[in-house]
Amino acid sequence: MRVGPSQEEIRRSNLGALLRSVHLHGAMSRADLTTSLGLNRSTIGALTADLAAAGLVSEEVPQEQRGRAGRPSLVVRPESEKVYVYAFAVEVDRIVAARVGLGGVLLDRYEAARGRGEQDATAVVAPIAEFVRKVQAGVDTNAPGARLIGSGAAVSAMVRREDGFVRLGPQLGWVDQPLGEAIGEVIGDGRPVAVRNNADLAALAEHTRGAAVGCDNVVYLYGDAGVGGGIIAAGRPVTGHGGYGGEVGHMVVNPVGKPCSCGSHGCWETEIGEHALLAAAGRNPSAGREGILAVVDAASRGDATAQAAVRQVGDWLGFGVANLVNIFNPEMVIFGGTLREVYLASAAQVRSRLNRNGLPACREHVRLRTPQLGDDAALLGAAELAFEPLFADPLDPP
Amino acid sequence: MRVGPSQEEIRRSNLGALLRSVHLHGAMSRADLTTSLGLNRSTIGALTADLAAAGLVSEEVPQEQRGRAGRPSLVVRPESEKVYVYAFAVEVDRIVAARVGLGGVLLDRYEAARGRGEQDATAVVAPIAEFVRKVQAGVDTNAPGARLIGSGAAVSAMVRREDGFVRLGPQLGWVDQPLGEAIGEVIGDGRPVAVRNNADLAALAEHTRGAAVGCDNVVYLYGDAGVGGGIIAAGRPVTGHGGYGGEVGHMVVNPVGKPCSCGSHGCWETEIGEHALLAAAGRNPSAGREGILAVVDAASRGDATAQAAVRQVGDWLGFGVANLVNIFNPEMVIFGGTLREVYLASAAQVRSRLNRNGLPACREHVRLRTPQLGDDAALLGAAELAFEPLFADPLDPP
Repeated sequence: MRVGPSQEEIRRSNLGALLRSVHLHGAMSRADLTTSLGLNRSTIGALTADLAAAGLVSEEVPQEQRGRAGRPSLVVRPESEKVYVYAFAVEVDRIVAARVGLGGVLLDRYEAARGRGEQDATAVVAPIAEFVRKVQAGVDTNAPGARLIGSGAAVSAMVRREDGFVRLGPQLGWVDQPLGEAIGEVIGDGRPVAVRNNADLAALAEHTRGAAVGCDNVVYLYGDAGVGGGIIAAGRPVTGHGGYGGEVGHMVVNPVGKPCSCGSHGCWETEIGEHALLAAAGRNPSAGREGILAVVDAASRGDATAQAAVRQVGDWLGFGVANLVNIFNPEMVIFGGTLREVYLASAAQVRSRLNRNGLPACREHVRLRTPQLGDDAALLGAAELAFEPLFADPLDPP
Repeated sequence: MRVGPSQEEIRRSNLGALLRSVHLHGAMSRADLTTSLGLNRSTIGALTADLAAAGLVSEEVPQEQRGRAGRPSLVVRPESEKVYVYAFAVEVDRIVAARVGLGGVLLDRYEAARGRGEQDATAVVAPIAEFVRKVQAGVDTNAPGARLIGSGAAVSAMVRREDGFVRLGPQLGWVDQPLGEAIGEVIGDGRPVAVRNNADLAALAEHTRGAAVGCDNVVYLYGDAGVGGGIIAAGRPVTGHGGYGGEVGHMVVNPVGKPCSCGSHGCWETEIGEHALLAAAGRNPSAGREGILAVVDAASRGDATAQAAVRQVGDWLGFGVANLVNIFNPEMVIFGGTLREVYLASAAQVRSRLNRNGLPACREHVRLRTPQLGDDAALLGAAELAFEPLFADPLDPP
């Protein structure tokens, strides 16, 4: 155990904190940085100079102060066009590839349909390779100072944290697929690709830049064909020993329930996943997002079958939420993916069940919310993950 | 946000780390401290001198080196007899009060029966006051340098973290009781008493000094009339926004289950609490620990009714454990209180259900264990909590 940082470590930590500030909040004046970081003006000046020399930030006189008398407070701006990461999202129906600049700016975005039933991770590599080729051929990345920091990927599956190996992705039809390695070969920069479960990364993104900024205890639920969870406790992700935690969709809520794709019975996702709502509404259980939207729309127009189906699924949704509220005492629960639509259509059932099953002390301050970042939340979370090593050591990242 | 510690903060952090080391591991040589803290010999010497001057540690030549030639490596020992905290445990059947010395040494211990049905926190204050009076009249505490650091209390209830106010303790028959304030008045040292849920503190103690040392992801289950949980994720307790998290006993596992004391139905504790096993075995459901031991004993001697009851409860025990394993991906699950006996008698059922309902990646490395610290785990956790401020600032604690 090493205790007490050296001067060099303190400087590195200060550089990281400054860079992270402009990454999160966008351009900031030196005066604001001085206040928010609790460092003095000259230290901020020196740190900024180092980051600027490394091509990570630029400084300028703000537009409104130009031509005025007196010494202006310079504005420190992240070099979003030059300093970037690759971010990928592998979902049931689509593959998204993006280039995200420092500051969380989406620079390029590319989306391809994914053929259901592709049981091999290498099948997703083709569209990713195409995107990377396009980007590498592009003008921007050849601009002086353009610099790739790393890569991150979100996948709706259980992922081994250490090497991005997918253990199980029932909705993708994947078992034991070396996704991290496959993407790493395409990028070819020699750095490992950070791969995580998509709900974990969507939770990270909403916590960092979305609905849950400032909330230290958050349960994020993501629904499509399956149901995943991303948990933040005391400000940090709960991912467990191997990185497989947060599998709230496989919390058994109904001991006499239906078989689940995981091999168990009565898992929460058998009651609130897309199939469950579609089947209850008498529709094609594989109709996916379009089908869910159609059921919710029918319910809003008074279709009795659709309304009953929405109420039933909403009740089960509240049932599991109550369990998680009793376990985590969160400030916020966020409903993402198609659970957003299901929650909005059944908020009364969800709240009613939460009030019946949730302990008052655990539920009294909880807010039920929809995501702010939309369908790219996991993609943006993958970008945040890829930027992390830069903040740990801005002048000498891995 | 303040970034980068001052020299004074670094020194304080080093003093805390050194003191925590001898608190956790007992007497250590300067040489071992140098290695484990990653500081040089002269720094260790200076820090030790400061702590010794403050009466927190003493230094001596180890017995086996006395009279030998050469310069011996001094041994740094926590002043366990002089530097102490008060620790209390308020349980359904008993109240335990203790004085615990630095290093986790139990100096005095006092136990009183608690009358079931005492619905007022002030009723527990009488035995605590008696204990404190005895201690204060004792010789040891009047010895030169004897010093009270603070107080902690464990209670089988939901506790508001900020002031130790008990919101709900169904098994105690408590609603809205100012336990922290009541104990604080008895101690009369002007410091707030840190109060937490007993399962949270037992988990902390097992993580610090017991079965889960070195495990960063732990689920601790405590059973008596009710069932509580203490969760450690990524090395830190999961207590939620207000401190009420970990109420795993009120995870609903049986939607058509029995009414629970919390007002809900089918909570896990209705299936695995003491009442459930006793009722299933055809015994008096209020027979408590003695009754549980009798059922387990009867099952081991071949009583078919008792065996069936143990199997049934063991299956439900595994059911909830599987849910928690899928959510937390822990390295270890610990069964405390009377769940220890239930688990030992039904380990096959628990493991079988865990294998059926738990996702392979989440359960593959999980170890199922019994506590190492016995029935005083929560008490010892309360002592750890009370010592915390000392490690944050050893020379000037609150």
